[in-house]
This record gives sequence, structure tokens and C-alpha cells, in this order.
Amino acid sequence: MKRKICVVITARASYSRIKTLLIAIKAHPLLRLQLVLTGSGLLDKYGGMQNLLARDGFRNIIKVSNLLENENATADAKTTGLGIIELASVLENTRPDIVVTIADRYETMSAAIAASFMNIPLAHVQGGEVTGNIDERVRHAVSKLADMHFVATASARARLIAMGENPDKVWHTGCPSIDLAIQAKSDASPQFDYECGHSKFPASKYLVVMQHPVTNAGGLIKDQFKSLLTAVEALQIPTFWFTPNADYGADRIMKEIQRYSEMSKNHKIHFLRNLNPETFLKLIKHCACLVGNSSTGIREGSLLSIPVVNIGSRQSGRERSCNVIDVNFDPEAIIEAVQKQVANGPYKSSLIYGNGHAGLQIADLLAKADLNTHKQITY
Amino acid sequence: MKRKICVVITARASYSRIKTLLIAIKAHPLLRLQLVLTGSGLLDKYGGMQNLLARDGFRNIIKVSNLLENENATADAKTTGLGIIELASVLENTRPDIVVTIADRYETMSAAIAASFMNIPLAHVQGGEVTGNIDERVRHAVSKLADMHFVATASARARLIAMGENPDKVWHTGCPSIDLAIQAKSDASPQFDYECGHSKFPASKYLVVMQHPVTNAGGLIKDQFKSLLTAVEALQIPTFWFTPNADYGADRIMKEIQRYSEMSKNHKIHFLRNLNPETFLKLIKHCACLVGNSSTGIREGSLLSIPVVNIGSRQSGRERSCNVIDVNFDPEAIIEAVQKQVANGPYKSSLIYGNGHAGLQIADLLAKADLNTHKQITY
Amino acid sequence: MKRKICVVITARASYSRIKTLLIAIKAHPLLRLQLVLTGSGLLDKYGGMQNLLARDGFRNIIKVSNLLENENATADAKTTGLGIIELASVLENTRPDIVVTIADRYETMSAAIAASFMNIPLAHVQGGEVTGNIDERVRHAVSKLADMHFVATASARARLIAMGENPDKVWHTGCPSIDLAIQAKSDASPQFDYECGHSKFPASKYLVVMQHPVTNAGGLIKDQFKSLLTAVEALQIPTFWFTPNADYGADRIMKEIQRYSEMSKNHKIHFLRNLNPETFLKLIKHCACLVGNSSTGIREGSLLSIPVVNIGSRQSGRERSCNVIDVNFDPEAIIEAVQKQVANGPYKSSLIYGNGHAGLQIADLLAKADLNTHKQITY
Amino acid sequence: MKRKICVVITARASYSRIKTLLIAIKAHPLLRLQLVLTGSGLLDKYGGMQNLLARDGFRNIIKVSNLLENENATADAKTTGLGIIELASVLENTRPDIVVTIADRYETMSAAIAASFMNIPLAHVQGGEVTGNIDERVRHAVSKLADMHFVATASARARLIAMGENPDKVWHTGCPSIDLAIQAKSDASPQFDYECGHSKFPASKYLVVMQHPVTNAGGLIKDQFKSLLTAVEALQIPTFWFTPNADYGADRIMKEIQRYSEMSKNHKIHFLRNLNPETFLKLIKHCACLVGNSSTGIREGSLLSIPVVNIGSRQSGRERSCNVIDVNFDPEAIIEAVQKQVANGPYKSSLIYGNGHAGLQIADLLAKADLNTHKQITY
Repeated sequence: MKRKICVVITARASYSRIKTLLIAIKAHPLLRLQLVLTGSGLLDKYGGMQNLLARDGFRNIIKVSNLLENENATADAKTTGLGIIELASVLENTRPDIVVTIADRYETMSAAIAASFMNIPLAHVQGGEVTGNIDERVRHAVSKLADMHFVATASARARLIAMGENPDKVWHTGCPSIDLAIQAKSDASPQFDYECGHSKFPASKYLVVMQHPVTNAGGLIKDQFKSLLTAVEALQIPTFWFTPNADYGADRIMKEIQRYSEMSKNHKIHFLRNLNPETFLKLIKHCACLVGNSSTGIREGSLLSIPVVNIGSRQSGRERSCNVIDVNFDPEAIIEAVQKQVANGPYKSSLIYGNGHAGLQIADLLAKADLNTHKQITY
Repeated sequence: MKRKICVVITARASYSRIKTLLIAIKAHPLLRLQLVLTGSGLLDKYGGMQNLLARDGFRNIIKVSNLLENENATADAKTTGLGIIELASVLENTRPDIVVTIADRYETMSAAIAASFMNIPLAHVQGGEVTGNIDERVRHAVSKLADMHFVATASARARLIAMGENPDKVWHTGCPSIDLAIQAKSDASPQFDYECGHSKFPASKYLVVMQHPVTNAGGLIKDQFKSLLTAVEALQIPTFWFTPNADYGADRIMKEIQRYSEMSKNHKIHFLRNLNPETFLKLIKHCACLVGNSSTGIREGSLLSIPVVNIGSRQSGRERSCNVIDVNFDPEAIIEAVQKQVANGPYKSSLIYGNGHAGLQIADLLAKADLNTHKQITY
Repeated sequence: MKRKICVVITARASYSRIKTLLIAIKAHPLLRLQLVLTGSGLLDKYGGMQNLLARDGFRNIIKVSNLLENENATADAKTTGLGIIELASVLENTRPDIVVTIADRYETMSAAIAASFMNIPLAHVQGGEVTGNIDERVRHAVSKLADMHFVATASARARLIAMGENPDKVWHTGCPSIDLAIQAKSDASPQFDYECGHSKFPASKYLVVMQHPVTNAGGLIKDQFKSLLTAVEALQIPTFWFTPNADYGADRIMKEIQRYSEMSKNHKIHFLRNLNPETFLKLIKHCACLVGNSSTGIREGSLLSIPVVNIGSRQSGRERSCNVIDVNFDPEAIIEAVQKQVANGPYKSSLIYGNGHAGLQIADLLAKADLNTHKQITY
Repeated sequence: MKRKICVVITARASYSRIKTLLIAIKAHPLLRLQLVLTGSGLLDKYGGMQNLLARDGFRNIIKVSNLLENENATADAKTTGLGIIELASVLENTRPDIVVTIADRYETMSAAIAASFMNIPLAHVQGGEVTGNIDERVRHAVSKLADMHFVATASARARLIAMGENPDKVWHTGCPSIDLAIQAKSDASPQFDYECGHSKFPASKYLVVMQHPVTNAGGLIKDQFKSLLTAVEALQIPTFWFTPNADYGADRIMKEIQRYSEMSKNHKIHFLRNLNPETFLKLIKHCACLVGNSSTGIREGSLLSIPVVNIGSRQSGRERSCNVIDVNFDPEAIIEAVQKQVANGPYKSSLIYGNGHAGLQIADLLAKADLNTHKQITY
């Protein structure tokens, strides 16, 4: 009897972080995959992935629409509550052997609570890391609800064990996002086929911006966006700018982007919602500098040798290689750091976040792991 | 400007654990109390507390009905999801400065998620302890979402610090439940005025049984109930037996109790839903032995010198004084342990869970504490 | 391509009202059945039907747990809201061609809103009748949301047309509950095999009581129950008494039943939760009198010649045959009416609620009906 | 003891339809107002009204965030389900004597179900009218749940009575939106003070466009928008275009608007989210033609003498004066009709939708009405 593995994806960013694991589960002789797509992952506005998943051959995906309009401070909480309610029904009707939840977005709490409260073994990928933002709390709380931990780095493993998790249930597999990045790295094709509205992929150097709202920044979100925009405009470098994740505050950034699009004559900045993971990796691999507060620069960027300017507190504390310069939301500091990184060019590639075999390793462990759900802190 | 403190009570058991804190908040010159009553705390079936709270002088209580019928494995998760949704609205409309959540019942996760996701400082009472059951996961996950920790024991404080919580935010105040127990202890009145259906308070020795379903015991819940019932029947001692908390599995126990009530001629066992905290403490203070898997025996019991027989895994790992004998769900072992405890009589009183000033101390700290919500693991 | 018909069952009572339609859909060459079980239909406490449906050969049933503990006035509303949320997901994931909703229980509104708001053709069975209670409002509101109406009586059809429904979309098929009743009527076996706790099926005459809370009776629910209990006790006839539906107020009746079971020595009254539809029909077919406020006496009772005493306002206005005597909640009036009905014996059978072919006819219409969802009142 | 009247507002459009009633309730010696703001009414994106309500002196507004991102067909249903759940709690905690719900937007069903299921008298404003869209079903279903009906026209009253509503509970008060329109009509100031981004209020003639998605138009929504845009561009008249309501499909229109804003050089079209009711009425009062499928043109337009071009099925069947020309979504037909209306100029004012005293009359009736909730169809 094959084990049924239920993987819950809640956002576009989670897909590239789990894609090789999905493929490995699908191919594994002892496993069956049940994919659940929820949250912003269902919405075009946030780069919805339904077509992408279909094109990649994933079928029978259960859809759970639960994202509230997030202008209100209550939205993230309510989206999570709704997710718990609906995922509980999904789990009751599909009866998986293991539920897999990914990383630390607020709404991943839904799958964690539904599974653990229903006594279904919960596997967590990318636990044990450190950042700022609500993500920091969510990540560690999910670890406390989880039965198995598949972590990206050696220090993440050490941290989970220090937190009282059973060492036998914490596996240092590396991050599945690095599996994809390694494939992208060895891809020799110099170009990629993306074409957007009125600009083409620039033959010259370009920036990539990924800037998400910081959930406890409150009234500063708009100012932070404007500081970054000021810097990017001043830099006068062609820029691909990704619209933000569906966190509280995203709406305010979206509105600023819309207003800017409407008013500005600047054709150097092109706004994007989503790309498929492979195209996305090609895009960032060739960029002159990745700017913002996404973990992508720190994580995939370390392997892909990308110069990164990380802004503000969102990634504070996250383990990093030498490719990252940290600055605050100060236009001048951002400009200076980007110019330094552009001048520096690619860094030495680092394997701190994985060696390319995470997906296969995790699938194997899911097939073999003890499914006992008795759990107690170790001290 | 007084700080508004929102305290969320979800079950009868939470009230005795927080009552002195509620009184202290109400009396504090720098604090205002906003009480929210939810979950089983609203239902007569589970010993609802509306009348009790009114009689104790608490007003303007916001009610949030969210308890699903819990025959299904999904019920606890859905109740929690619904709680998050509704508490988010309550917090948006009342705008408290701090939210206080108590202990480790599954549904306390609702207040913890709503407050932390909405960036409102979260205070947790009774974190850092160790048990079995889903409570163990919930307790530590709530700690990871919380900003301030008011713990009952020194070892709970050490544990939270080991888990990476900031030592400056973990206060060893003792447990407010002990504040009440100390008052009960010094109460000289030998009798109490409780009268039930067809039996009177027995002048002779009596037992108190408090037995809750263990959420990961699955099909064993009924057997466990029957083992305990067999033992209690064989003991032939007058018994006050409290119906279970609203956890998954409670319905099966309730049904067995109903069936037993209907069929049996045994008038030695009297089933109870709830008592007000003071009457309850008098009842257990005078009992020959407290039997079951409630934390009450370990916690208030340690102070009140009560002989306790603790059964099964639900309290495994919880710090305890010398007044507790642990056994499994084996009728013979239970009988033997109860007889031993009845023969032993009262134990030496212990202060491990507090010295009687927890409520006042916590209120003071709530009035003074820094309300910054930036949080990061310490290692 | 077969049409997929999604039938939503929310309570035990709905099953006997729809069973022959379910069988007919399953057997129809142009239809596929998707059964959804929700509300009290999932709970043992209310006579849950999971085992029953399995035994009757229905598979792949989607379960949606949504019933809140109904001590609070908010429970029925919240259960319905939760039902809408979850059924919307079920409809999105299963994509039926038609949704079928049954009768007038408050929670049937969930399927009606989910389907109509999602632009899926909605078929309503048992519309156009008249009663008291919240059922009266729900029934007509569902008719206003529905695209097709399969009604039990000629006057129900006339009423829907008077209400502005398109005559081409209102079919007088009779009620599927009568299909089953006709089978039961022709069943010659004099006995049935039901055995309960400590009493056997009485060879002598017996009563059947079915008494539900009236949702706008408020504080009178308990008094109404007691009036009926007083009458039944005085009558001294063996009685099968069904516990109430999961309406607001049911809990108070349940509690009274439990208390009575515990205290009383009366072994003449036996309380039941549920029977499978066929056994149930045998039971009522042979009874001396059916007492209470269920529609069963009026509906199936008219065909099965059962003497019925209908109490209070719940069925006020419902079309009836000569087999029913109406009284208020007055013990003396109830006693007198029951004695009169017992003395009278079986009535002449009536076909006002159907001729036994409703299930087949409705299935055929579901296979052929135009699926256009444009709808407008006819005047 | 003053009666507490709970009015639930779910969208910007509802405010102008109810404002004079809110003022009348506030001023009435026997009434107290409890305002609840929910749905799109809370969101800036859809012209949120929080600041507007505060400026107009309404205080202690309870906020209920429940709007899901509406790219999915499930969104409207889930928003409604969530609304029921949360409004039930609001009603339980505020205990109003009457709940008032307005018109026919899908989410008004939330207040209707919560109130009627909780046995609180429900008053419905603007029932009995006829249109297309899901609104048509919702409006009549709400009437079937309501206890009191305050209708805008004589024929609406006749229709409700034909539907079986008690004539004593159906009052022809006229529509409160006309109260405001009459004030606007008598306002002599020729100009208004609105200034937008880069265009000023045009001294020359201008159009106003109000176009909402039709919920059962499915894939046609985008085409319909484009037909209208083509026509408006060709007309070359300055145009104020209101972004759509938060119905399913609004997102697709919003996206098209955003794309058009970004790409087009046409500064003749200015997009707006919301205006306060008085400014809005001045804007439409002076326009050359009101184009689209909003009820505003038919309702307020009839009084304000505005030439209207109504497009498609959304308002089909709604009673209208001579000021409206109906066309399909055909650019040429739209152009021709607009040119004809612009050439025609203002029409004769009509009082079919009210004479300016609706708010006061309704408030008076709310103060006097019998609060009995027993209801039954009249035939």
C-alpha cells in the first residue's frame, strides 16, 4: 500500500521550493501524491499557478480558495482560519498518511494546525532558519507542531535540536529550491524566451527587484516602497520588478505600483507577477543584482553566484553566503550597495542551502519514516 | 491612558487558572479588562461560565460561539479556525493593547494566531511545561507566537529560555490557579453547600474523578473510560465524576456516561459538569483521592496536599510534587494505587506551582511591559 | 457525457425523503451521482447515516462537518455559513451539472446559496408547501434561489407558480418519501426485527413520538417537551420516542431526555436516535398513533393510514389528509386526542403526497432539463 | 426603552440608498442606531466608506471584514458564508430589536440569514423589484426571509403581495436614495469641487459610466467591458468611469482597467472608485448621459432627469421612467444610443421611485412596527 503524501502549496514562491520534491514523490514506487493548492497560489493577481502545475503534469489538484482581500489587519488571520476549516475537510476526505507543509508564510499555519489537530503526521520543509517578520514566529510554531523536519542547512538542524526537537526526526537534506537552482546553473543557454508588454529582455545588464511588505512595519510600508523606487529610478538600469506576495500590506504596494505605472514615463522598470520556476531562475541567474527583501537572493542566490542587496529587517538573521550586502530603506545606501554589487559581478557559488538532492532524499524519508505521532520536547 | 487587556477564556478549566489575574487587572489603576468568552466556556453542556462570570462581577463580556460538535476528527481544527476568524474581528473592533491567552488547550491557538498575525502583543500564561497529548504541541507553538511569558515554575522558565525565548520576556510568576488554591487552603469551613440530584455530600471519604479524552488515543478512548469505570465501581467509594472537556473524543465519553447513568443502579457515582472555582477547590481539598488525567491533581493538588492517581500519558512529563502516583489504564493498577493513596492521606503541601501572588504580579507586568512586537529566536 | 448530479444530504430525515431518487440517479444511464453528507447527518448523536449509506451501496461520499453545538441562538446561522463556505469548495472541485437540495431544514440554505451564487443549476425537492417555524421561510427562500422545482402536491405546484416561479420549471412529481412508504405498505411481514436496550418490540399497541424544537418558541421549548411527556406518561402505552433533530433548542430537549432517563423508572418509554428508513417505516406503519410535530405523520402517515396527533404550530398550514388531529401543547388535549386516534385505528390511505414514482420521474427530469440559469420572476 | 436598529451596509452603493434612513434613525426619539460595515464597504479598493461615515457623524461602527479575493467562482458564496458567521456573533453581542438589510447584493443574504435564523425581526428595503443577475434571486429570497418590507414603488408592493407576503407588512415608502436625489436636485450650485489626478471637472459635457460584471455572464465579462470601452473611446467625450462593485468578475474588469490605464494615452477617460453620495449625485445630475448597467440611472436618474443608456440584462425588468434607452453590448448600438441621449438632453423628472420622505417614514415604521416573528405565506 503506497503512502499518500498530501502537499499543501499556498503561494507561487512555495512552488519553486518544492517542485523537485513533488516530482520525486510522484516518481517514488512507495508514494502517491495529493496536491492541494490554496491561498494566493490560486489567484492570477498573485501569479496563480494552476496552469503552471497543469503544464508540469500535476493532476487532480484540490483547490481551496481562502484568501481574503488584505487591506485589513484581520485578513491574514482570517485567511488562515478559513484555511484550517477547509483543509480539515480535505484531510478528512482524502485521508493522507503524511501532510507536507513548506517554509514559513503565515498561511502555512493552516495545514500545520489541521494536520496536527487531526493526528496526521506533519512534515515541515525549511524549518529551523531565522528571519524577521511574522515568518519568524510562524516558522518556529510550525516546527513545534510538526513530526518530521527536513531542513536546508546544518545550523537549521542544530537550532531545531536546541529548541527541543527529537534529533532523530530532523534531517539535513538541503533545500529543494537548490535542486532546481543547480539545474539552472548548469543550463548553458545564454538567453531566455521571456517577452513582456513593450520591452524585451535586455541584452545589457539588468536588475531584479523582489520586495514584500513587512507585516510589522505598519505605516512604513508605503515609505519603504518609495525609498526603493527612488533608488531604482536613480540607478537608471533596466529592471524587472516582481509584485509582492499576498501579505498584509501588499495591497498598498500594489496600489503604488499601479499609480506609478499609470503616471510614469519610465520604461526602464517592468512589473511582473510570476514566471515559472525555471524561467525565473534563468532571469535571476543573469541579473546584475537582485534587490529587495526576498529570501531568494540569500537562498538560490548563494548557489547562483548572484550579487544581492538585501534591504531591511525581513531577512535579518537568515544564514547567508558572501554574496549579500545588507542595507536599510535609505535610497542612497541602496544605490551605493547596488552599484558596488553590479561592479563586483558574480560571487563564488556556495552550497550552504543544499547540494541538489533534497527532493529525492525527502521523498525517500517520507516513504520510510515512522508515522508515530507521539511527540514531546526533549528536555 | 489605561492599557486595554483582552483575556480570552475558552473553557471552564481556564477560569480557575486565571480568575485572580482577572480580578487584579480589573483593580489595577493602569489597566482595563476586556473579557472574551468562547468555545466550550459558553456551553452548559461543558459547564458554561456565563452565569458564573456575571456573579463574580465581570461585565461586557464578548461572546464568540465557535464549538463544533466534536464527533469528527475535524472538529477541533474547525473550532480553532472559526475562533481565529471571529477573534480577528473582535480584536479589530476592540483594539486591545495586549491579548492574554491561557495554557494549552487546542483552541487557545485561535487567540494566539489572531493576535500575533495582527501584530498585537501576545501574553501567554502557563507556557514552558511538559505533557503528552496535542496540548504539548499547542503549548510550545503558542510560546513561539507569544511576546511575553508568565510561567508557573522555575523549570518552565528555564525550558522557554532553552527554546530560544528572550529571558527578559519570561517571568516566573507562579500559576494564578495556586492563588485561588491558597485561599481555599486557609478556608476553615469543614463543609460545603453543594447538593446534587439524589445524593448529598458524603460525610465519609469520597473520590473525585477528572478524566479527559486523549486526542491521539483514537479508538482507545472508550476502553480507557471503561477501565477507569471498572476500577471506580470496584472501589465502592462515593465518587464525584466530572464530565470531560470539549476535546475530540469527549462525545464518546459523554455517551458512555449517559448510557451508564441510564442503566446502572450504582448511586455511588455522581456525574458533574462544573462547579464554581471556589466550590470546586473545596470539593477536591477534602477528597480521599483525585483520580484521572487532569492537570488539577498535579497543579492545585500539590498545594492542597491531595493524594492523586494520575492515569496514562496525558500528563506525562509534567513537573510534579510527591503527591502523585502514576499508573496505566489498567483497572487493577488503578484500584491498587487509589487504595494506597486513600490509606496514605494528605501529603505535604508544595509551592512548586506558585506562592499565591501570581495574579497581582502578572497584572503589574502587563501594565509595565514593553509592547514592542519585534521578536527573534535567541540563537 | 453523463450529467453529474450532486445531492446534498444534511440530516437523517432527508435520507428517507430522497432515497429512491438517489437509487434512480445511480441507475440512470445519463446521470452520475455525487453524494455530499453534511450537518447532523454525520453525527451519531443525531442518528448519523454514514454506515447506513454504505450499507445501501452509496460510495465516494464527500463529508462536510459543519454542525456547531446548538445551545446558542447563533448556532444554526453559523452552521449554515460554514456549510456555504465548504460546499462552495466541494462544488468547485467536483463541478456538478446540477445540485439537488431537499426540503426546508435551515441548513439546506447552504447548498442553495453555494450553487446559485456559483451559477450551477439548483433543483429543489419538496418546495411550495406551507408550515410554521423557520422552515417556512427557508423553504420559500430556497425556491426563490432554485432553477427547478420537484413538488409533492398539486397545491404546492400552484403555490410556486403564484409566487412567480416559471410553470415550465415546476414539476408535480410527488414526494420520494412516498415511494418508500408505498413499498413499506405492501410489505406483508407483520413484525420487524428491531430490538432495543431492555425492551422488546411490543406485541401490544404502541405509540411513536417525534417532537422537534420550534425555533421561534424560545423559552417554551422545555415546557412543550414536558407537556408532551406528561401526556405520554399518563397514557401508559409503550412508546418509541425519537430524539429531536439538530435544530436550535434540541440540546434542551436532549438534556431533559437524559435527565428523565436517569431518574425515571418508567420502562414504557424507549428513546431512539435513528433507524434505517425501511425499518422506520415498518415501525410507524404498525403504531397505534404517531404523536408530535414531525411532518412524517402528515406526509408518510397519510399514505400509511396512520392515526396522527399533531401538536403546536410547526406543521400549521401543511396540506393534510383526514388522518391528523391537531392540538396545542396541553397535556389533557394531547391525551384525549391520542385516545381518540387509538380508538379510531387506521385511516383510509391517501395519495396526496405522491403515487410512488417520484424518484424515477425526478431522475428523468434531471437528465433532460434545460440547464440555463437565467431566471426572473414571472410578473 | 429605545429600539435598537441594526443596519448592515455591505458596499458603497448601499450607503446612498440608506443615508437618509440612517440620519432619521439617529434623530428618532424612540430609536437607537447600530451600524455594521462589512464586505467591500470596508475596502479602499472598492471605495471603502469608513472615512465617509465618520465625516457624516456616524460612530461606533462595527467592522466585519469578510470579502474574499473574487477571482474564483466560490468567492461570492464564501464571502456570504463568512458574513453569516460573523454577523451572527455581532447580533448575539449587540442584541438589536430589528435588523435592516438593503436591496439585493449577494452578500446582503448574510444579514438576512443571520437575523431570521436568530429570530430577530428583519426589515428589507428595496424589495419587490425585478432585474436580471444573481441580484434577482437574492432580492426575492431575502423578501421570503424578511418580516417587514419597505418598498420603493407601488408595483414592488403589489409584487410582494402577489408573492404571498402579508400586505400589512409591506409599506410603499419610496426609496431613501430618492430623498438624497431630491436634495441634490434642488441644489442650485452649478459646479462641484471634485478634482482628479490630471484632469479637472470638464466645463463641457461629459459622460458617467457605471458598469458592473454580470454574475452569470461567465466568459463574456471581458468582452462586455471591451465593447463598452470601444464605444466610449469612439464617442470622444470626457468620461468619468466608476470601477465595478465587488462582484465575481470584478477582478477581470479591474485588470482591464489597469492595463488600459497603463497603455493608453487617452486622457478623456478618468477612472474613479467612489465619491461621497452628495458629490456623486451632483456629478451625475450634470452629466450628458449615464451609461452602463447600474440601477442608479434608472432609480436616481428618473428623478434627476438624466438621459441613460442601459446596457445588457442586469437591469432587465426593472421598472423605469422614460429617461432610459436599452441596448445590448454592441459598440455601434451603444454609440448611437448615447449620441441620441446627449442630443435629447434632460428628461422630465419622475417620482416613481419616491417623493423624498422615505427615510423619515421608514424610521417611524421601525419605531412602531409589531415585532412578532411568526410568518406564513398568505395562500
